[in-house]
Amino acid sequence: MMDMRFSTNFLPANGLALIGVSGGADSLCLLLLARQISNLKIIVAYFNHQLRREAVLEARFVCDLAEKMKLPFVSEAADVGRYASLHRLSQEEAARTLRYRFLFAQAREHHANVVAVGHTADDQVETILMHFLRGAGLTGLKGMAGYSWLTEFDQEIPLVRPILHLWKSETEAYCRDQGFLPVYDTSNGDETYFRNRLRHSLIPELEKYNPRVKQALLHTAAALQGDHSVLQDVLEIAWKDTVIDNGQGWVAFDQISLVKNSVGLRRNLFRRAAEFLQPDCRDIGFEAMDRAAVFVESPTKDQIDFVNGLFMFAESGKIYLATCEAVLPTGDWPQVSQQLTLDSARLEINNGWVLSVEQVDVDSANLQITNTDNWSVVLDADLTGDRFIVRPRRTGDIFSPLGMNRQTVKLREFYIKVKIPRRARRNWPLVCAGEKIVWVPGFRLAHPYRITEQTKRVVKFMLQQE
Amino acid sequence: MMDMRFSTNFLPANGLALIGVSGGADSLCLLLLARQISNLKIIVAYFNHQLRREAVLEARFVCDLAEKMKLPFVSEAADVGRYASLHRLSQEEAARTLRYRFLFAQAREHHANVVAVGHTADDQVETILMHFLRGAGLTGLKGMAGYSWLTEFDQEIPLVRPILHLWKSETEAYCRDQGFLPVYDTSNGDETYFRNRLRHSLIPELEKYNPRVKQALLHTAAALQGDHSVLQDVLEIAWKDTVIDNGQGWVAFDQISLVKNSVGLRRNLFRRAAEFLQPDCRDIGFEAMDRAAVFVESPTKDQIDFVNGLFMFAESGKIYLATCEAVLPTGDWPQVSQQLTLDSARLEINNGWVLSVEQVDVDSANLQITNTDNWSVVLDADLTGDRFIVRPRRTGDIFSPLGMNRQTVKLREFYIKVKIPRRARRNWPLVCAGEKIVWVPGFRLAHPYRITEQTKRVVKFMLQQE
Repeated sequence: MMDMRFSTNFLPANGLALIGVSGGADSLCLLLLARQISNLKIIVAYFNHQLRREAVLEARFVCDLAEKMKLPFVSEAADVGRYASLHRLSQEEAARTLRYRFLFAQAREHHANVVAVGHTADDQVETILMHFLRGAGLTGLKGMAGYSWLTEFDQEIPLVRPILHLWKSETEAYCRDQGFLPVYDTSNGDETYFRNRLRHSLIPELEKYNPRVKQALLHTAAALQGDHSVLQDVLEIAWKDTVIDNGQGWVAFDQISLVKNSVGLRRNLFRRAAEFLQPDCRDIGFEAMDRAAVFVESPTKDQIDFVNGLFMFAESGKIYLATCEAVLPTGDWPQVSQQLTLDSARLEINNGWVLSVEQVDVDSANLQITNTDNWSVVLDADLTGDRFIVRPRRTGDIFSPLGMNRQTVKLREFYIKVKIPRRARRNWPLVCAGEKIVWVPGFRLAHPYRITEQTKRVVKFMLQQE
Repeated sequence: MMDMRFSTNFLPANGLALIGVSGGADSLCLLLLARQISNLKIIVAYFNHQLRREAVLEARFVCDLAEKMKLPFVSEAADVGRYASLHRLSQEEAARTLRYRFLFAQAREHHANVVAVGHTADDQVETILMHFLRGAGLTGLKGMAGYSWLTEFDQEIPLVRPILHLWKSETEAYCRDQGFLPVYDTSNGDETYFRNRLRHSLIPELEKYNPRVKQALLHTAAALQGDHSVLQDVLEIAWKDTVIDNGQGWVAFDQISLVKNSVGLRRNLFRRAAEFLQPDCRDIGFEAMDRAAVFVESPTKDQIDFVNGLFMFAESGKIYLATCEAVLPTGDWPQVSQQLTLDSARLEINNGWVLSVEQVDVDSANLQITNTDNWSVVLDADLTGDRFIVRPRRTGDIFSPLGMNRQTVKLREFYIKVKIPRRARRNWPLVCAGEKIVWVPGFRLAHPYRITEQTKRVVKFMLQQE
């Protein structure tokens, strides 16, 4: 029974494991157990958080231990407190970041197959409880995995937690039985006041309601990890179906595909996109998820904040999730950055877009057809005159869309109404006769310049991508 | 803002809702809100648990209320205490069963579209917490659904919880604002000591760790409900892929398909099968799930206990989950229940299985081929003699399988080794020459009776399904 409990999980039978050892009972127990795997090579790694004075003594202790065991030893010291205040992180977050950065850097350097750490069942229970109190979803409630990748630190080398099934008291007993005296576990020192309160106050309180609550929470973790992995498989497929493009700092979903998926799946797609855009994005609040899930069903013109500086917006049937620094796709739109004079039959705009102009005969039947395509238009030449310019919008522009009779609208509002992609609006080409906008290519001609029964002379515009 | 919060969910715009009303603030608030849906007809239903004396007064109160509102009123009294001890249920379980049985019976009788109950956000938080303490999986942790089916009570009519987003304090305030005085909520009386402890002790304790923990747990519920519904969709497909047969009290999975699925999905398949077999099976422990998940990977000959009297066994590439009373498929095996004498060339066994016997010439080439099919066999007739019987096994039977030279094995062990379906073993037909088993049809002939170079006279048996 004892032996069964003390077999490790996820440590390879051979190869090289880099083991994070603090000198406390948990990591010491892990080291002792790993040593029993005859073909496994081991590197002992110690990270000095420089949060407490005795850390130097602990480093010494672990170094001596490694020497006694004839195992290679690596260590590093970093000023966690300074890093925390520099990057506005909690001390716990900063410690975690620097510790794993060190462990994985060493693992890469020594070509280790895995990084192993000594998290125990007690750590698992506390983690789950912490997530529970915070209102976490499945990803949080499932707790730590025995085998996983911390992609923000390394894409290839897995992190394993071989003694996640052992209780802290068991690791202490094991060290004692093996004749090793652990130091006071420095991880206690790293802990926040919050985690300590859970351990010493809340868990004993919960045990009054279920004496086996710790065991129960381990079961929850195991069950939810199964469910989570099923969800991940589904997500993999849904991701391929809905993500139609991505680039530096942005992911674009097909809106229709997205809406076809259930809200639950959508939330998971957004979480994944967020993690893709910001690998250190570890906790996405429910409100952000919900806001996004609702947004995609009826996207508004405005971008919405998602989380961690990410924002979401809709454009041309796509839902974008992007960072502030995203290099968004420019699109393939006609765009002008300054005023151009149309003084020949042909004006090159950009991206192969060409505006052409010609005088044509009055032929009502023909005109009817032409006018149904918003990329070519015929206007009453006596009303427009012969001098045309092409320019981007100006503040205060107004426009009288065809069919609205004599009503004018703000161009800004017209743009929103006809759903010109938001980022295309600023430089959308406007064909003007003097100050008057006579045509918004791709969308609508101006009502006053339409062909009527009185029209005698006609001018035809066409905007085409060649 | 107030108005937004006080809109109900899942109550239809028209049709008929049967509303469970206890007279307490929660259900009274629900009734008042439902009344505002102009085209919705309402029946007020009161269930008297007969657990406390004042229930009669409450019934009177709710009846008067319905009369004042000009709404139809139905009620029923049942002795919950007696039912609980009769069916060995907790009082809470018994109350729940009888209450919903009454509500859905009334809903069916009056052709109601929904049954509505007044569970609040507080009830939701307590439910989640209760599941959390017990170590529940996703199904428990997701809490109560706003819209669901309690298939053990009715397959068609949904149960809705229209005010699951409102806090108890809000329902109290609403009743007060509307000029209605609720009675002391009887649901408090129905509550177990455990639930009361959660409400009055544990939740305030948790609020010391996160003042908004109740809100947080509501978010957890919403997120997990999304995840759960994604899982249900996956499960639907996996169910169709893995369940190859089912009948009264049993479900048969294809073992290979089952093993191809992840452990998480397997657990969900078992839960679903258990719910299918025992609709009132509400809580499947983690150990049972885990035992089953492991079993299907390397099934043993023994059946294993699952949960609630369900058991699991493997047979012929299928994994069965069954109740003790299951009418299991008999299979299509040859079976004999008593000793039969083979006194003609043909003996009918059962299910169309026919055993035939004939003398054939010695022709080694031919014999070689014949012997590769275990459903027909040739033996040395000088060794077997001419008098054959067919019988089921007897305690202590031994057998010398071909190829094991002179070794004999217990027939029981041979059966296990060759994997004769467990339930088929007792009546599997054995062809014997006197006391000696000469052939186990479908599996092996007995070594001593094999054809050798000395063989002069040959007997050929064949067991076939016609």
